[in-house]
Amino acid sequence: MDHVIVNDVGPRDGLQNDSTLVAPEDRVRLINSLLEAGIKSIEAASFVSPKAVPKMADADQVFAALDQEAADFSALVPNVKGYELAKKAGARSVAVVLSATETMNQKNINMSLDETISVCKDIVGMAKNDGVRPRSYISVAMECPYEGLVEESLIESLSATMFEAGAQEVIIADTIGAANPAQVKSLFNRLVSEFGATKLSGHFHDTRAMALANTWQALECGIRKFDASIAGLGGCPFAPGASGNLATEDLVLMLNDAGFDTGIDLEKLLKSVALTRQLVGHSVGGRSMAYLTRGVVNQ
Amino acid sequence: MDHVIVNDVGPRDGLQNDSTLVAPEDRVRLINSLLEAGIKSIEAASFVSPKAVPKMADADQVFAALDQEAADFSALVPNVKGYELAKKAGARSVAVVLSATETMNQKNINMSLDETISVCKDIVGMAKNDGVRPRSYISVAMECPYEGLVEESLIESLSATMFEAGAQEVIIADTIGAANPAQVKSLFNRLVSEFGATKLSGHFHDTRAMALANTWQALECGIRKFDASIAGLGGCPFAPGASGNLATEDLVLMLNDAGFDTGIDLEKLLKSVALTRQLVGHSVGGRSMAYLTRGVVNQ
Repeated sequence: MDHVIVNDVGPRDGLQNDSTLVAPEDRVRLINSLLEAGIKSIEAASFVSPKAVPKMADADQVFAALDQEAADFSALVPNVKGYELAKKAGARSVAVVLSATETMNQKNINMSLDETISVCKDIVGMAKNDGVRPRSYISVAMECPYEGLVEESLIESLSATMFEAGAQEVIIADTIGAANPAQVKSLFNRLVSEFGATKLSGHFHDTRAMALANTWQALECGIRKFDASIAGLGGCPFAPGASGNLATEDLVLMLNDAGFDTGIDLEKLLKSVALTRQLVGHSVGGRSMAYLTRGVVNQ
Repeated sequence: MDHVIVNDVGPRDGLQNDSTLVAPEDRVRLINSLLEAGIKSIEAASFVSPKAVPKMADADQVFAALDQEAADFSALVPNVKGYELAKKAGARSVAVVLSATETMNQKNINMSLDETISVCKDIVGMAKNDGVRPRSYISVAMECPYEGLVEESLIESLSATMFEAGAQEVIIADTIGAANPAQVKSLFNRLVSEFGATKLSGHFHDTRAMALANTWQALECGIRKFDASIAGLGGCPFAPGASGNLATEDLVLMLNDAGFDTGIDLEKLLKSVALTRQLVGHSVGGRSMAYLTRGVVNQ
């Protein structure tokens, strides 16, 4: 059986985009619950200014509470300061975010695309020198909410830039859930042919209900690592009311059903969904929850 | 652009499995609304005993109200009597349902698999002689709620039987929404290689949220015709609370986005969803509705 790595981004991407502020000790509980279900790759926290992003405050406390041997815990770092804090907190893996378009970078972090590339390269280079594993997101990789469709050649070139800078992994992110499987096929075939499947990962949003179809197509292209968020945590700011991240339980159900080895126990994962609901205090859950909890009372 | 036929089964499969009884004139309104959106293939009614299935009563009135030139309207016929009534009502296309397993046939229609095969062959033969287009469903084609996984060789053999009897199309149905894309790939590759893609169609349920991924895989196998139900109408009796049929709007969104020619206008299709909600009086809608209706008030 082919092994597929599921990287749960719920504790960071999910919680950061949820309306509820969850305390660091509860974020650790959530992470431990994911570990219990067999998840071995987790985006644990973001090292950002607590004034700018209160939901990610005390990321150092989160990392201090984690057994770094238990899984591949990644820290999102938006800038050099964040990287220094993550390193100090003991992070062994860091991720930078490079949005593919000029406007997205301007609107999102008030930097030009060139400036963002430069910052991302710097951080990746520092991490490499420090023995910290550097990863790079290429976000809005298929469509940008401001500039529309994104050229494949741009994604290929940005990926090459990050690999050359020392990134060990590039995560191709359909940040706004606008991709369709035909696009995924074309882009991932191109990237896999250029960089190989093992250094690439997919991050799909379920805004248009195509996240699993896109994931399946990426699997067909050879990709064996995917982001997902427990209970589908994290909305889509560009389509209020629409679901955001692909739910981990939906992804694991498909992977396990299709005969991939994930090492993840769906029954235990449902406990993580229940805990997530408890922590955020409102209804969350993947599209397969009605099926997964059939016969279960009070779900 | 490749053309894909979307066969909307909402007026029959959908409404028959909904809790609300919808009058024949309203079923005609729904069908006309689907035509308005560009749908050219519709399962319009079922010719069954009105005592057994009150929701499908007056199927002849439905057919009488339809312009048979406007689309490919199909009638579901469970037995010879139903076929005779459908023919009398002017149906030009009929479909029989052959469940793949012994137990499903026993539980569903109190006949053995052999008896069902025999009845289906008879009807298909009669239709062929009458110049009516015969189609055959092979239901629970991947997994049966009673017997579990279904052998591909059985589906191949049942399909061959129905083609030999004169069926112009065989619809492979994942009736309980248990299939995964790996299964779809294996089964459809086998059937396409044996019978050709143009005579096959796919019918997927979204119980486990994999209907679009399964559809995408079937498209990759060459299939160009799919069932779907407007607003996802029709639940899944084997997983209460879970969604049933793949929603037409979800399917069309993916097909149109992926560059297939469907001839279907999504904006107009949303009017059919709104009408469906009005007719059944409760919340229905595909998984992409929050996205499709973003910015629309009161949806």
